[in-house]
Amino acid sequence: MPAEFTIRRRVQFAETDMAGVLHFSNYFRYMEEIEHAFWRSLDLTVYLRESEPHISWPRVATGCEYLSPLRFEDEVDLALRVKKVGEKSLSYEVDFRRGSERCATGRVTAVCCVTKPGSFTPTPIPNVIRARLNGGEVR
Amino acid sequence: MPAEFTIRRRVQFAETDMAGVLHFSNYFRYMEEIEHAFWRSLDLTVYLRESEPHISWPRVATGCEYLSPLRFEDEVDLALRVKKVGEKSLSYEVDFRRGSERCATGRVTAVCCVTKPGSFTPTPIPNVIRARLNGGEVR
Amino acid sequence: MPAEFTIRRRVQFAETDMAGVLHFSNYFRYMEEIEHAFWRSLDLTVYLRESEPHISWPRVATGCEYLSPLRFEDEVDLALRVKKVGEKSLSYEVDFRRGSERCATGRVTAVCCVTKPGSFTPTPIPNVIRARLNGGEVR
Amino acid sequence: MPAEFTIRRRVQFAETDMAGVLHFSNYFRYMEEIEHAFWRSLDLTVYLRESEPHISWPRVATGCEYLSPLRFEDEVDLALRVKKVGEKSLSYEVDFRRGSERCATGRVTAVCCVTKPGSFTPTPIPNVIRARLNGGEVR
Repeated sequence: MPAEFTIRRRVQFAETDMAGVLHFSNYFRYMEEIEHAFWRSLDLTVYLRESEPHISWPRVATGCEYLSPLRFEDEVDLALRVKKVGEKSLSYEVDFRRGSERCATGRVTAVCCVTKPGSFTPTPIPNVIRARLNGGEVR
Repeated sequence: MPAEFTIRRRVQFAETDMAGVLHFSNYFRYMEEIEHAFWRSLDLTVYLRESEPHISWPRVATGCEYLSPLRFEDEVDLALRVKKVGEKSLSYEVDFRRGSERCATGRVTAVCCVTKPGSFTPTPIPNVIRARLNGGEVR
Repeated sequence: MPAEFTIRRRVQFAETDMAGVLHFSNYFRYMEEIEHAFWRSLDLTVYLRESEPHISWPRVATGCEYLSPLRFEDEVDLALRVKKVGEKSLSYEVDFRRGSERCATGRVTAVCCVTKPGSFTPTPIPNVIRARLNGGEVR
Repeated sequence: MPAEFTIRRRVQFAETDMAGVLHFSNYFRYMEEIEHAFWRSLDLTVYLRESEPHISWPRVATGCEYLSPLRFEDEVDLALRVKKVGEKSLSYEVDFRRGSERCATGRVTAVCCVTKPGSFTPTPIPNVIRARLNGGEVR
């Protein structure tokens, strides 16, 4: 089981700002994209629409450090590491790399919730999800 | 000098996601919006286009804790506090409130940089800017 | 009844791109923002969550002509005109003005739909909504 | 020379809205993404930063018709057709397909411009670019 899950993502024009770089808020979108790709790699989807009840994963804490700006058309290698699978929460970390250079590192903690439109109630992570996430966890 | 600078901002439809809430990445956009409104309140602009050299403020660290989801058409009171004006860097904190309820708190540290498109070189904060920011600093 | 509904909106940093202007896709977000503000001005909301069934307004056609670029911190006066209230559809037009200069004009046609998450069924515009929209229609 | 240039793009969570579908403004971002991928396929880049003077392609007209909503995790096949290469302008059309179903079609007309930050001056399309675009034109 690899310690990291990786995808490559190209910086798009609409994601840049007038300073000529990837806008800092978009790093969080990239983190979510690799998170969801990671789930798909485990044959999971982060948003169980057909489940009863619906499960989704609102974020309770996020953060990012930015080391070197990313620019239009840069190819960015994103690398996700699961840091903790708690009873109800999940934490992971994502590196942003351009070639061998680490350009940023971000973190997200999400909570497993029974979800109705616009509201969330924390719930233990279902066993089927936990088992697969643990398979992907860094030990 | 008030300890907080505040603006009111309504959650827009395009800022929500399929879970029916303000997408977590957009909190960082709101933080930037109040930051820039704060600068304008000091008769400054965050992006000095006509200056030679250009000055801008790339972020080196950001974070947010989310306590309660914000929804379409919610009116959010944003409150910014300057936490630190360093030699080259600036840190501030933003609360997100809906009425008397604190829904989130975020943090940004930005660095004063001489800027060419897509590249940044840290530089001491110009005195004119420092003086005005210190006027707004929480002590 | 005014022929136009107007709001003022400032161009935000995250809405610009590396060419230094408001990204062309964001004009559609501005159009939606004034549309929803217009609805609120009629004591309506565009998304009836508590109604049974839910009503929402997916777009079937949109367009925009761009005459002059909008830039960071520009104050843009948006002016909405209702062009047509059909049996099930609604068309409006939005001008983007900076002072006396028209910078862009966009168009949206939306269809009144009974909505479940991710799916839409066209339905006649409810009378209460039609009456208020017609009150705001240009004659 | 193929009559169409195609890429596949997955709908991301942050691109959905509370109605559970890809927000209508994001179709324009997808159109730009395939446009830029098309340019790269011709060994061009849409933003010539190192050229003197800089060339970029602001939009003068855009539009989209929406036939069927796109949802989170849908894989969308985008297909670009060059419709016209004028003296200074370029028009193309993009289909959005999910499997064999056409879900939307959009159009963009862009103008070749000498670009300084925030300002644009139309200029004839450079021959090297015109030749490659014509190679990709549908005829």
